[in-house]
Amino acid sequence: MKGVILASGLARRMGGIPKGLIRVGGREILYRNVHLLRNRGIGDFIIVANRWNEKAYREFMEKHFSGSIRWEIVLNDAPHRENGYSLHLVQPYVDGPFALTMADHVYSAGFISRAFELYRGTPAAVVDRNPLYIDIQEATKVKCRGNRVAAVGKGLEEYDGADTGLFFLNTDVFRITESLLMQEVIPLAKVMEEYHPECLEVSAEVWMDVDTPQEIRKATWLLIRDATKGKGDGWISRHINRPISHLITYATVEHLTPNAASLISFIGGIIAAATAVFHPPAGAVLYQIHSILDGVDGEIARVRLMESRAGGWMDSILDRVVDFLFLLALSLHLKPSAHTMLWVMAAVFGTLMVSYVSERFRGAYCRDPYGIIPPLSWIPGKRDERIFLIMILVLAGRVAETFIAVALLGILKALWNFLHMFRWSLSQDSVRRKP
Amino acid sequence: MKGVILASGLARRMGGIPKGLIRVGGREILYRNVHLLRNRGIGDFIIVANRWNEKAYREFMEKHFSGSIRWEIVLNDAPHRENGYSLHLVQPYVDGPFALTMADHVYSAGFISRAFELYRGTPAAVVDRNPLYIDIQEATKVKCRGNRVAAVGKGLEEYDGADTGLFFLNTDVFRITESLLMQEVIPLAKVMEEYHPECLEVSAEVWMDVDTPQEIRKATWLLIRDATKGKGDGWISRHINRPISHLITYATVEHLTPNAASLISFIGGIIAAATAVFHPPAGAVLYQIHSILDGVDGEIARVRLMESRAGGWMDSILDRVVDFLFLLALSLHLKPSAHTMLWVMAAVFGTLMVSYVSERFRGAYCRDPYGIIPPLSWIPGKRDERIFLIMILVLAGRVAETFIAVALLGILKALWNFLHMFRWSLSQDSVRRKP
Repeated sequence: MKGVILASGLARRMGGIPKGLIRVGGREILYRNVHLLRNRGIGDFIIVANRWNEKAYREFMEKHFSGSIRWEIVLNDAPHRENGYSLHLVQPYVDGPFALTMADHVYSAGFISRAFELYRGTPAAVVDRNPLYIDIQEATKVKCRGNRVAAVGKGLEEYDGADTGLFFLNTDVFRITESLLMQEVIPLAKVMEEYHPECLEVSAEVWMDVDTPQEIRKATWLLIRDATKGKGDGWISRHINRPISHLITYATVEHLTPNAASLISFIGGIIAAATAVFHPPAGAVLYQIHSILDGVDGEIARVRLMESRAGGWMDSILDRVVDFLFLLALSLHLKPSAHTMLWVMAAVFGTLMVSYVSERFRGAYCRDPYGIIPPLSWIPGKRDERIFLIMILVLAGRVAETFIAVALLGILKALWNFLHMFRWSLSQDSVRRKP
Repeated sequence: MKGVILASGLARRMGGIPKGLIRVGGREILYRNVHLLRNRGIGDFIIVANRWNEKAYREFMEKHFSGSIRWEIVLNDAPHRENGYSLHLVQPYVDGPFALTMADHVYSAGFISRAFELYRGTPAAVVDRNPLYIDIQEATKVKCRGNRVAAVGKGLEEYDGADTGLFFLNTDVFRITESLLMQEVIPLAKVMEEYHPECLEVSAEVWMDVDTPQEIRKATWLLIRDATKGKGDGWISRHINRPISHLITYATVEHLTPNAASLISFIGGIIAAATAVFHPPAGAVLYQIHSILDGVDGEIARVRLMESRAGGWMDSILDRVVDFLFLLALSLHLKPSAHTMLWVMAAVFGTLMVSYVSERFRGAYCRDPYGIIPPLSWIPGKRDERIFLIMILVLAGRVAETFIAVALLGILKALWNFLHMFRWSLSQDSVRRKP
């Protein structure tokens, strides 16, 4: 399957930048679309440009994708003939099914994944029946009949959803564009009305077309919020940490790489620990701030499409180091008795074991335990919750009790997770073989 | 591909048990062969039995494999006509390539894997050019010419290797067996001499045919030693722990399940920790004994073909618990000063982090870091080495120094591993995509 991106539109430009090269969430829209389609296995792209933006697109593709995919830029010398004509020009370059999208449409990874999961090999227009993030009055609307596209247009009175700008087509679409060639202007809507692809519904996922600076800001914000969806966040994270980290990410996504954000968060954690030796309440507040900052690197990585296994791995290990140093610092301040020291050690052990039990599971099964074993989320004890609890207790002047609480929370959470994972693993082994 | 197992031989039986049902290393030979072939993707078996052992084989297959594979037992009513005739009887049941083996041949998983890796779809006899574990004088020998079997027999003067009893055949072999049907006795050797399959060399892997109680013992021992091959053991493990754990496994493999062995080792670790509170030297020796016992569950699991991800996962977590409890116990005995307490906490942290860094890597990449990053093995600090060091220091009366040594060893090892894994992960990311 190939990917076709239409980028020859003559719509008003923003500051002279071709639309596909506008940055949303730290990445050019064209980069986003190529990257997301490549992640679905497409390695061959055709980009239709016009004479004014062709050079910029060519340089951009050479800089970012040379070597990693095949791509070609097709020139549309009559861009006023609109998108249906641009599509027609692609005919010599494709010989089977292809995904078609627009250079000014931004999609979340979830949107593209869902569309590809639903695609069954027959031509389809991806339609959002319940668009949450765009103004349906302004949008191109689609009317479906018998699950096929019947009408497309901005002015439809009756419609079933919005045109998301993503299509799965086949070479037979060129019979339609051929038949329309006599007309001076060939809107894509017109082509689809005669081609009648399936209506493929993808709703409740982030997508939007971007025209104005205001829309860029909105799209960036949507991508940031979408980046933490399904991460299995705890209560504190969802209600306290994320709302703040989203704002920080929004402010920094253009300027910070994920690794730089990790480093800042790590240094923040070290400072929190160092402070806790002399002034536990101040240290505890800094620790909670570190916990909020700790979400930023992952958000930036996902929004900028820079997620990497190495990044997640490194981040986890730095978290363990910070957690240990903070407990160490707090115990230095306390100068604990032999009795309290048991709790200090148990707190260190429990804190590490919550992560170890999960990671060892992931290592054994190559699967995310929180994704497949729902009871793991039933009791608190994840990092965000633990750090918040530490802050509350330390602010209340209960440093010795902090260790007891952290030890109990950690060990009980680790034990709970261990038992549920163990039960799950037994069920797996019995599925795979007889005793 | 199907699997064919010839089990109709009339050779002297051992204690009235059909040869395929003799237990070697806690598993019947037939179970081993079916299990190992199934692991290579074969789900369809034909077993040729005689009238005396048919019922026992049928009951055995029903008990162990009903539901998980398809199998059929074919009766050879004239077993004195030998294996070539048994092979001929299989003709109606196969319609493509099949793997052929004998009910009295024991193989290691490594042997079977190697043979299937080398198999290229053309008929082949698996030949061991340098058999380490059998008496070549007694063995059936194979002479190859132009990489094809030229002669097979016990009495060959000139030969290239030993017949391992494993063959990859195709239905055209039945033309040969058909042509030999006039003869009363049809040895498999005779069939192969006329069929000329390729000589497929698999050497330096464990296999042997089993006839006598002495050979059962020898095969069990070979499988146990083979079970720890390539596990990335440290120096102490290779030279002290394994030689002892092999003996323990040899004595217990028939009686203990892997989980029972894990539990015994865990309880041993708890006892070691409890002892260390009152008498560190005795506790340290028990800890080292626990470290030796800790190898037994994995060995039993591999030799009895009961390896499971759940088992490995659980075992790792119990190890972390024992390590923590031992350090806790030792610190209780020491009643450390605030200064020493730093080292105690660092020892707990370092001990856990050595495992955490590796497991988090395995979780991220689904690959064994020690297998793909050689420098990780360059410095010591694995569990076997750490426990041995603890024993030596505690026996020398250096309890406080034990914590310092364990902390430094653990943190340096974790840091070393972290940096090498980080370097590796950078090289991976740059392979996969441009910055």
